[in-house]
Amino acid sequence: MDAREQACVFCEIVAGTGRARVVYEDAHTLAFFPLAPATRGHTLVVPRAHSADLWAMDEADAQRLFQTVMVVGRALRAVLEPDGMNVINSAGAVASQSVLHTHVHLVPRRPGDAMGHIWPPKGGGFRDEDDAATATLADRLSAALRVPTRD
Amino acid sequence: MDAREQACVFCEIVAGTGRARVVYEDAHTLAFFPLAPATRGHTLVVPRAHSADLWAMDEADAQRLFQTVMVVGRALRAVLEPDGMNVINSAGAVASQSVLHTHVHLVPRRPGDAMGHIWPPKGGGFRDEDDAATATLADRLSAALRVPTRD
Repeated sequence: MDAREQACVFCEIVAGTGRARVVYEDAHTLAFFPLAPATRGHTLVVPRAHSADLWAMDEADAQRLFQTVMVVGRALRAVLEPDGMNVINSAGAVASQSVLHTHVHLVPRRPGDAMGHIWPPKGGGFRDEDDAATATLADRLSAALRVPTRD
Repeated sequence: MDAREQACVFCEIVAGTGRARVVYEDAHTLAFFPLAPATRGHTLVVPRAHSADLWAMDEADAQRLFQTVMVVGRALRAVLEPDGMNVINSAGAVASQSVLHTHVHLVPRRPGDAMGHIWPPKGGGFRDEDDAATATLADRLSAALRVPTRD
């Protein structure tokens, strides 16, 4: 365990030195309840290997992470029978990431629960009044993705 | 196209009869800008085949969807160089799902943007004061997932 991992609370949970209610683990991933759940059954899915955020992961590890998200999410649905579910990943403090070890939130939802509406955004949303800028952005993305812009 | 698909605005975009700025498409998935973006560059990734939500998809299609989320997310990061990113899926009206065709939001984030903080939750979060109920839930999930509870 290197210094970075020693300072990471999720690495400690992966290593078994940090306490958490772990509900699933396999060779690459782990799922456990967070200390401050948004709703009953709120579960975090993390990679065993430390990465700062989703975008620092390689494709194979990211796919394994999302496979576990699906497996654990289906179990949450089977056990809790919630009315809905949010799957949320945050990268960067500006996106509300607090622990700097990649994690995906599974948040089972009930009417009137303490999570509240996640949409429309608290900030009121973006008024897209610059159609030319949007078209340019779409073109740049399409070019980066090497497919033609369709509209 | 069956009656359900005819009534689905995202199926119309997939079919090319509904207008949207499509920035990526492959055999199984499509990515385009939503009508009401939360931030500049906010992009939706959807499966071509209609499904009401993520949990109605089979595993292979869900994996393809998340593969495209990673591909498009990396392009958004390369082109926009945002300070952060949220990846969000909502299933069910209670979870803020509005269009009943599976979609994953990629939301590039900047300080002071119109998305605002997505955490702590608007509803204030869940006060987990019933440790026995939480332990029982962890046990039920572990049993459903066929792995031992570690704590």
